[in-house]
Amino acid sequence: MKIIENVKRRHFLIGSAGTMVAAAVGAPGMAQSDGEPLPDYVAWKDAEDMIVHSKQTLETKRAAQGSELITPSTELYIRNNLPAPPDEIVADRDAWEVEIDGVANPGKMTVGEMKTLAVETVVCVLQCSGNGRAFFDHETSGSQWSVGAAGNVVWTGVPVRAVIDAMGGANAGAVFLTGTGGEEIPEGLPPETIQVERSVPKAAMDQAILAWEMNGEPLPLAHGGPLRLVIPGYYGVNNVKYLKRLAMTAEESPNKIQQTSYRVRPVGVKGDPSQPSMYEMAVKSWITGPLMDAATGKVQVHGVAMGGVSGLDKIEVSTDGGQNWAEAQFLGPDLGPYAWRPFVLITELSEGTHMLASRATNEAGVTQPEFFPPNERGYGNNGWRAHAVDVTVS
Amino acid sequence: MKIIENVKRRHFLIGSAGTMVAAAVGAPGMAQSDGEPLPDYVAWKDAEDMIVHSKQTLETKRAAQGSELITPSTELYIRNNLPAPPDEIVADRDAWEVEIDGVANPGKMTVGEMKTLAVETVVCVLQCSGNGRAFFDHETSGSQWSVGAAGNVVWTGVPVRAVIDAMGGANAGAVFLTGTGGEEIPEGLPPETIQVERSVPKAAMDQAILAWEMNGEPLPLAHGGPLRLVIPGYYGVNNVKYLKRLAMTAEESPNKIQQTSYRVRPVGVKGDPSQPSMYEMAVKSWITGPLMDAATGKVQVHGVAMGGVSGLDKIEVSTDGGQNWAEAQFLGPDLGPYAWRPFVLITELSEGTHMLASRATNEAGVTQPEFFPPNERGYGNNGWRAHAVDVTVS
Repeated sequence: MKIIENVKRRHFLIGSAGTMVAAAVGAPGMAQSDGEPLPDYVAWKDAEDMIVHSKQTLETKRAAQGSELITPSTELYIRNNLPAPPDEIVADRDAWEVEIDGVANPGKMTVGEMKTLAVETVVCVLQCSGNGRAFFDHETSGSQWSVGAAGNVVWTGVPVRAVIDAMGGANAGAVFLTGTGGEEIPEGLPPETIQVERSVPKAAMDQAILAWEMNGEPLPLAHGGPLRLVIPGYYGVNNVKYLKRLAMTAEESPNKIQQTSYRVRPVGVKGDPSQPSMYEMAVKSWITGPLMDAATGKVQVHGVAMGGVSGLDKIEVSTDGGQNWAEAQFLGPDLGPYAWRPFVLITELSEGTHMLASRATNEAGVTQPEFFPPNERGYGNNGWRAHAVDVTVS
Repeated sequence: MKIIENVKRRHFLIGSAGTMVAAAVGAPGMAQSDGEPLPDYVAWKDAEDMIVHSKQTLETKRAAQGSELITPSTELYIRNNLPAPPDEIVADRDAWEVEIDGVANPGKMTVGEMKTLAVETVVCVLQCSGNGRAFFDHETSGSQWSVGAAGNVVWTGVPVRAVIDAMGGANAGAVFLTGTGGEEIPEGLPPETIQVERSVPKAAMDQAILAWEMNGEPLPLAHGGPLRLVIPGYYGVNNVKYLKRLAMTAEESPNKIQQTSYRVRPVGVKGDPSQPSMYEMAVKSWITGPLMDAATGKVQVHGVAMGGVSGLDKIEVSTDGGQNWAEAQFLGPDLGPYAWRPFVLITELSEGTHMLASRATNEAGVTQPEFFPPNERGYGNNGWRAHAVDVTVS
């Protein structure tokens, strides 16, 4: 199968003739992924399906997402704020200790102890806040993710609520659930400038779990093993890896990653705590095939769609850049409100260039917008037009 | 993680002291799988998770099944009646032709043409008729499968009904849906003695699909690519690989695999067409962990359960050889009536040897029996007692 790079729509808009420009941008994209070997700590991933942006940032190819119900671990994107801790921390997974604070009886709890409390399996989208950043027309710093900083993942672990209850319940006055990552802090740096510590509204406890398993296997180190805080419906950054502390707190973490990073604000504005934090994900979808060309006649248009924090109501596909929409069909079982669903539309395509777009609507009645406003860090892009692909039919 | 071999209960029954015997039979089992390299055509499988019985028969390790919602392709068992055809047949998948017969307008249809008709994704258990054969007390020929000739698989393809309708509908008088495999017939052998051709009641059309994708990727050659007939709820043998002919027929296939093989009959009796054929699967479940030993205290007992051709109603676990049962909890989303569901029970185990067993009940109200009758070829074993494991708690 021909592997096609993730299509960067903004390049198409800049260029004049769709096909030529697509071919031109395709080439460097190919070189980037096929030339760059996988970093050692994720050497077990499928290199063919990944784009290596850097050692800490690897994206799944758009074509590889296809109509997958579940994203295999070997294809799942990587975005680590800090290098992964050494292998030793997964040598005895059940011995991993988490400090539980802001509860009636604060103290430590091991993964082994958590396993005696309760178990839950949840399927949810894991998606980086910057997924879709490459599709903004303004320049942004940060990894130029297109659609591949997202996957649909099966997590198994203990509900956060069961852990908090086992420690006597949250203190009065708790407003946030705060998780601290166990990454090593490089020497000489003040921890608060770099340590991964995120606070989310305590209501997220309703669905949050502490996961020790991903896709039915022990959680890989690269993805936060032995234990990761997973908050279904929330952007990736809140899913703290190598969780070493979990606290019910009255205040948000004082760390940079909470206070000023991951804040949505206009272009040119600095981050501050008054701005919205990257918490709940929005309704979103994108086409995963065809991406470049197709033969005339009937063709299957594929993609994936997610409702954010609510289930999906419907998915529509346009083959004429959004002038007309047809309802497409979800494929396979519904894996719950936080999961994505692959979709397909069989449609007739005539000769020429077609802009294929998809537009999801969730059960809360929210429809994916045509545009998402430009913002300083390029977060949260779910605009359907930016995610569209130009396909040449001949 | 320590990989534990699939436990062969009948060996336990023969021996006297559970632990000692378990240790003794564990050793050759280990040697069998760890020593035997994977055959070339399935070299992409995860050797650590597989038991190689022969070149055409590979079993998934019981511990590897764990509480997996979906069985990764790299772990899925292999049971091929004939060697897989050469790689060339998956070079141009859409060009693969199937002869459609017993319809108003018989003729050929390519996979590419099928893709213009309709698409469906279904999750279902793929299970060999002989899964559980090793647990019978009587000697049986055939692969000594314990629990690992089964997996939960995502299939995508065209509904059989859409293909039949596109060819003008089934002929009057059609009673069976007959699929013919594209394996090469060894020279000098009469085809009917060896060719894989199976007939199933035409009612199976309600759920049958012709699948070109497995677990979100093009169907691997080893599993029947480019096209396989998949009949959710039916034993593996009916899911004809390399499908080259699909026919609505008045009679069952005259081939041996239909007429006399895969027939359930008493021990010592020859197969004949009057005996039940291995069609619909039965309600079944088994423990996947712990398998050998555990520490005293609270422990998670895991397993997988399937309803056969109906959804699951409940799953019970016994830790005392079936004297007492506790309802266990299904893990994760329900993937439909033909899929399996992982389950877990957190329970307290005291020092000593415990026989862990599981017992599923489906929505049709059928409960997995304690014993399944011995039969000539060792088919269809779903007795809960035979599938139990002895675990030493200290």
